[in-house]
Amino acid sequence: MRTEVITVQTGSRLTVRNITDEADRFVAGQGDGLLHVFVPHTTAGLALIEFGTGSDDDLRRVLNDLLPADDRWRHRHGTPGHGRDHLLPAFLSPYATLPVCAGRLMLGTWQSLCLVDPNGDNPTRHVRFSFLPG
Amino acid sequence: MRTEVITVQTGSRLTVRNITDEADRFVAGQGDGLLHVFVPHTTAGLALIEFGTGSDDDLRRVLNDLLPADDRWRHRHGTPGHGRDHLLPAFLSPYATLPVCAGRLMLGTWQSLCLVDPNGDNPTRHVRFSFLPG
Amino acid sequence: MRTEVITVQTGSRLTVRNITDEADRFVAGQGDGLLHVFVPHTTAGLALIEFGTGSDDDLRRVLNDLLPADDRWRHRHGTPGHGRDHLLPAFLSPYATLPVCAGRLMLGTWQSLCLVDPNGDNPTRHVRFSFLPG
Repeated sequence: MRTEVITVQTGSRLTVRNITDEADRFVAGQGDGLLHVFVPHTTAGLALIEFGTGSDDDLRRVLNDLLPADDRWRHRHGTPGHGRDHLLPAFLSPYATLPVCAGRLMLGTWQSLCLVDPNGDNPTRHVRFSFLPG
Repeated sequence: MRTEVITVQTGSRLTVRNITDEADRFVAGQGDGLLHVFVPHTTAGLALIEFGTGSDDDLRRVLNDLLPADDRWRHRHGTPGHGRDHLLPAFLSPYATLPVCAGRLMLGTWQSLCLVDPNGDNPTRHVRFSFLPG
Repeated sequence: MRTEVITVQTGSRLTVRNITDEADRFVAGQGDGLLHVFVPHTTAGLALIEFGTGSDDDLRRVLNDLLPADDRWRHRHGTPGHGRDHLLPAFLSPYATLPVCAGRLMLGTWQSLCLVDPNGDNPTRHVRFSFLPG
């Protein structure tokens, strides 16, 4: 199994970072199979959405509404409200699987693979790509 | 890797469409491995739930509550409220993996694989099945 | 494909049960590949979160807020409010995939694999592990 960990920079507030180009490069030349994407963090997750036409802003909004960054949470390490960062991976899982044919991701026209990171305290993130031949 | 794209009709409002029969047919005769299910759209997702005993109606209700089809969203293509359709795949991912033994899906008694499509503007949908031998 | 079903005890109210040790034992000695985790129930799901520092309590809280155990649901089998138990797997999917290298789960330091079970009527649960060589 070919596997590789890349480093991604996010930011100081809830960030939706498009990592489709990185995934495309990883599967290039790999034949048919599955791309497995894995985020080894407890305060980030993955989403396959349209990027750059407002939906990434809308995703930030709905996450801030459903998982408010306030003091209601029991987990209280880090900055105030950080407890909600730890809930995000339960809803936006840190694992994804995408079909690959002849070394190309078989995504729909508007789909982008995004790392969603609400944690402003830790802007350096890792993502593991693995290719499972079919 | 055996892979195939099927076409599914949904409807003019939020639809929960049972596609278990289609998945069963795809894996028949395939031995042991994983079924990978992939929806190449940005306004539809997958759920593995009980179907036909009210839970599909309940899922429509909770999705309409959590992701209201109103004008709060920045993405404004299509019919009013369409912005929320683009958020659904972040929560109900468009990829799923199901275990297969001897060409049969190892689902629980009450589990059905469902395509969840809030987008009334586009009732013709595609789903890619891929079989990964184990 | 090596596959095995384990039995897990949960409880009489919404339970977040850490099953990382069971997953570790299953993949030990398996080489490189993917661990597939599957819950064959319609009222339980999976989450990969930090366990034991409050986040499992926070997850219970947010699930009780977003999916209230009251009489609004159409599915009315079992104890009152049970309808919401059937919605949990739509949001916390009953399938997960985790990377394995040299027989070890490549989890982040704080990640734990958890079975999330809101259904107090059925405390005996099954989880299927399968190993897909890479």
